[in-house]
Amino acid sequence: FAPIAQGNVNTALRAGDYEPMEGEGKMNMKIDLDSKKVVNMEELAAGDKKVYCRCWLSGTFPLCDGTHAKHNDATGDNVGPLIVSGPKKE
Amino acid sequence: FAPIAQGNVNTALRAGDYEPMEGEGKMNMKIDLDSKKVVNMEELAAGDKKVYCRCWLSGTFPLCDGTHAKHNDATGDNVGPLIVSGPKKE
Repeated sequence: FAPIAQGNVNTALRAGDYEPMEGEGKMNMKIDLDSKKVVNMEELAAGDKKVYCRCWLSGTFPLCDGTHAKHNDATGDNVGPLIVSGPKKE
Repeated sequence: FAPIAQGNVNTALRAGDYEPMEGEGKMNMKIDLDSKKVVNMEELAAGDKKVYCRCWLSGTFPLCDGTHAKHNDATGDNVGPLIVSGPKKE
């Protein structure tokens, strides 16, 4: 079972010592709101390149549709997408 | 040049008609704050599996470190990571 490349989860998960940052509020106002936690799993083939939403406002979630630009303009935020490529096609 | 799998960007980008959702505010309080827009590009090899942060609070950004769970507890949000796998190893 290949270890999932994930940061040091333990340090972040100590119960009760979490201090929300100033202004930290809900980010997701529209995607799967009845789900307890929205997790997406994607598989890339060789040659694939996909642009994934990280602003929770895309109309084509989990893919990006550019709405982050309008969100940033409206709120002074600076969020942008994650672009992931599979291995080159042989 | 392989087309990037991206949603219908045009519809989202019409200038000036964007209505922020109720409660929509800044999401990124700590990652590359001096950058105009935080975009990350990642490459997956065959057999890779990576967990990516979508809450902008991970200490190992762009990878997830589990902080979303504490954010969700503190704010009633339901954000979670994006898990991306490369093609299986032959």
